[in-house]
Amino acid sequence: MAKELKNFTKRSDNYSQWYNELVVKADLAEQSAVRGCMVIKPYGYAIWEKMQQTLDGMFKETGVQNAYFPLLIPKSFLCREAEHVEGFAKECAVVTHYRLKNDPDGNGVIVDPAAKLEEELIVRPTSETIIWGTYKNWIHSWRDLPILVNQWANVMRWEMRTRMFLRTAEFLWQEGHCAHATADESQKRTVEMINLYATFAEKYMAMPVIVGVKSETERFAGAINTYTIEALMQDGKALQSGTSHNLGQNFAKAFDVTFVNKENKPELVWANSWGVSTRLMGALIMTHSDDNGLVLPPHLAPIQVVIIPIYKDEEGRKAIAEKVEPLLAELKKKGISVKFDDADNKRPGFKFADYEVKGVPVRLALGQRDLENGTVELMRRDTLEKETVSFDGIANHIENLLEDIQKNLFEKAKKYRDEMTYAVDTYDEFKEQIEKGGFILAHWDGTPETEEKIKNETKATIRCIPLEGDETPGKCMVTGKPSARRVLFARAY
Amino acid sequence: MAKELKNFTKRSDNYSQWYNELVVKADLAEQSAVRGCMVIKPYGYAIWEKMQQTLDGMFKETGVQNAYFPLLIPKSFLCREAEHVEGFAKECAVVTHYRLKNDPDGNGVIVDPAAKLEEELIVRPTSETIIWGTYKNWIHSWRDLPILVNQWANVMRWEMRTRMFLRTAEFLWQEGHCAHATADESQKRTVEMINLYATFAEKYMAMPVIVGVKSETERFAGAINTYTIEALMQDGKALQSGTSHNLGQNFAKAFDVTFVNKENKPELVWANSWGVSTRLMGALIMTHSDDNGLVLPPHLAPIQVVIIPIYKDEEGRKAIAEKVEPLLAELKKKGISVKFDDADNKRPGFKFADYEVKGVPVRLALGQRDLENGTVELMRRDTLEKETVSFDGIANHIENLLEDIQKNLFEKAKKYRDEMTYAVDTYDEFKEQIEKGGFILAHWDGTPETEEKIKNETKATIRCIPLEGDETPGKCMVTGKPSARRVLFARAY
Repeated sequence: MAKELKNFTKRSDNYSQWYNELVVKADLAEQSAVRGCMVIKPYGYAIWEKMQQTLDGMFKETGVQNAYFPLLIPKSFLCREAEHVEGFAKECAVVTHYRLKNDPDGNGVIVDPAAKLEEELIVRPTSETIIWGTYKNWIHSWRDLPILVNQWANVMRWEMRTRMFLRTAEFLWQEGHCAHATADESQKRTVEMINLYATFAEKYMAMPVIVGVKSETERFAGAINTYTIEALMQDGKALQSGTSHNLGQNFAKAFDVTFVNKENKPELVWANSWGVSTRLMGALIMTHSDDNGLVLPPHLAPIQVVIIPIYKDEEGRKAIAEKVEPLLAELKKKGISVKFDDADNKRPGFKFADYEVKGVPVRLALGQRDLENGTVELMRRDTLEKETVSFDGIANHIENLLEDIQKNLFEKAKKYRDEMTYAVDTYDEFKEQIEKGGFILAHWDGTPETEEKIKNETKATIRCIPLEGDETPGKCMVTGKPSARRVLFARAY
Repeated sequence: MAKELKNFTKRSDNYSQWYNELVVKADLAEQSAVRGCMVIKPYGYAIWEKMQQTLDGMFKETGVQNAYFPLLIPKSFLCREAEHVEGFAKECAVVTHYRLKNDPDGNGVIVDPAAKLEEELIVRPTSETIIWGTYKNWIHSWRDLPILVNQWANVMRWEMRTRMFLRTAEFLWQEGHCAHATADESQKRTVEMINLYATFAEKYMAMPVIVGVKSETERFAGAINTYTIEALMQDGKALQSGTSHNLGQNFAKAFDVTFVNKENKPELVWANSWGVSTRLMGALIMTHSDDNGLVLPPHLAPIQVVIIPIYKDEEGRKAIAEKVEPLLAELKKKGISVKFDDADNKRPGFKFADYEVKGVPVRLALGQRDLENGTVELMRRDTLEKETVSFDGIANHIENLLEDIQKNLFEKAKKYRDEMTYAVDTYDEFKEQIEKGGFILAHWDGTPETEEKIKNETKATIRCIPLEGDETPGKCMVTGKPSARRVLFARAY
């Protein structure tokens, strides 16, 4: 069993297969009986819960409150904002009936044709429409603004090709929907939230990201600007990890949401929306994990430290348990989540492999000889390095080590990302480089036509126009026309 | 505006209308554009979040882990357990298509007839079927048991007559689904969870409940036994507030989930499920609130203390803010959530009314004269009593007062419940009493026929057979046949 757990496809052999196997072997998720939908298993869900709690606290620090809006959206709502319906209303789950009845032929139940809805309802692919339909009743005066609301919810997009966490028909996410009295305030909130996501990605996920603006083609349907954080996976492909949209007055216009401003004049409300999803789980997995399984940054690990006793008999187990007890208390007091796994139905070798595959950052193993010597064997998951250390003062050592691992994972991922980021000046060079993966910074003339040509010929897309970095103008690598600055290209998930 | 806020229907005039108005005026929820679905507003959601966090912690203390299962359930799954489909599959939202397309006539979008699903999908009314379909792959040996899993999710039941929080088409809930190796263990878990709900109701909601077993007629569809907590609302009607179902081996049988037991023999797995929902919000509101609005028990109040400054000019505001600042810090340190509302665009009178309607347990008001005298005006929401107290030591006073209020609300609700609980011996007496509301303890012969007759003639149902209380046998008030013990009747929500 221990061997079977470790019997992985290697990343270098087949990255995609490695990913699929890891998700299952680390007990994160599995395919369900419903096409394109996954079951998030307890261990995977515990990681998602840590992400949720952290993000939720960060949102609330900025004044955001949670609320809940309906799952089902009337079909007509989706049509109110013209661009939005083009982008979202097509591939989605449609509720047409509200009742089943016994099959007269005795074959279970059938849809009752008499229970047809007058207007079909759509399982929300995103909630701008239903929320702005609601805000109309909430907003009358400038005194009612801003509204800073978020919801944690499930959404559904009928994707044809799905992959666990990265692209599933149903997924979990949060969607923030803010309403402001001025364009300036709304723009500030849009940028504030993308920066919040960047901070979360780097500080908690140990995942370096590039913050930027999407090109017009890649914008959210209905937005006047979309901000994004882009990360680079270990196979050299980019992953869009969070977005924040400045929606201008488009949804206020579509749903007729006006307010009386301080000058006592009616004005359309300014909007933004922003979200991250269980896709972050995919990003987390692909940023750090290795051929031995999942590698988790300590700040998001449900179990940060596991202690495994090695003993021959009940007396031996007891002696170790007694030794470990004060350490458990000390670690918990420090806010470190620790598990003492003295389950009797699994051998230590199996446990070692299991926690390695599950990415637990620090593993302690304690045997009879350790008891005698006052030592403990410690392994850190990020480097797989083992050392035998003194049991005395081990809690402080672990506390520092967890921060070390967190930092090391970020540095390692950043080093990889930086090494895989290339400035390229000619289209030939670009075509050659893109085959090897990575981020490419290149000049582009700013037109959707050139963007599409590049996409068709190389499968690379503009990930973003970075907010920071080199802002020197130049010439488009394809057309030779003027370019305001280098933009970021990659093949992407 | 302050007047308008307080301009309520009285409970004694029209309880139902009082409830509907309160939900809106206290800013808890509102009807949405989707039939039978509500929007939970930030203030209402903050209360639900406190309930969630508390319950989630209590679940985890007993070893439960969270996970997530698909929203949509294949129609055929619902038919696998014969009783279950009768109880649940009828009134539910059915997804029949997965795509919209532009209307060729130019009227927005229409359902694409080419995108019809081979098998219809049902928006989950509850998740036993999809979860036991999944457990089949998780469970092989006794070593895989128990599985103690919960999910926080939205569910949908196409109710014809809806009321906010009490009965809505979509609602939020948690559903726990446990799998055990023995009938005994599963029964113990079933009872453990109903007792956990009772503890939560009494300790946090300050709502006394009666724990009992449902009659066969009132059982969950597919269960061999349903446990319930029943509370009495202020209009004398009962509210079922949480249930825990012993499912025996019914779902294991339906989904063919067996395990190899310690004797190396295959055996069907034992199941239970248990849940509470946003219905608890309705229970909370109707247990404590009064003609002035919401009354919240401190343990679930998002804002426990509000401080309102009364000042003439900016200098006055500043002086109060300075005085209050250390108090805010002190209260926060004690884990008390406090809001200093010095918003300039609302008058103190409006704020008083608003926080009263919203049920904030303790209100402080601080003016110029208080600064001079070293005093503060304090109002407790439960009794509406005002007193002027010394500002020194106010934090400790508030800390004790919050516990007092919590206790007082429970005692008050319990006193009402006890006074409204009647032991009745004849059917005539029963019919007379039931018109006045309350719980009635009466003898019943144990047959569904008598139960139905009572229901048809009086609209009263058996709420439960209490686990505690008088267990003396007697004679059925309707048929005169032997009765094992008194059972609890009421008209119910």
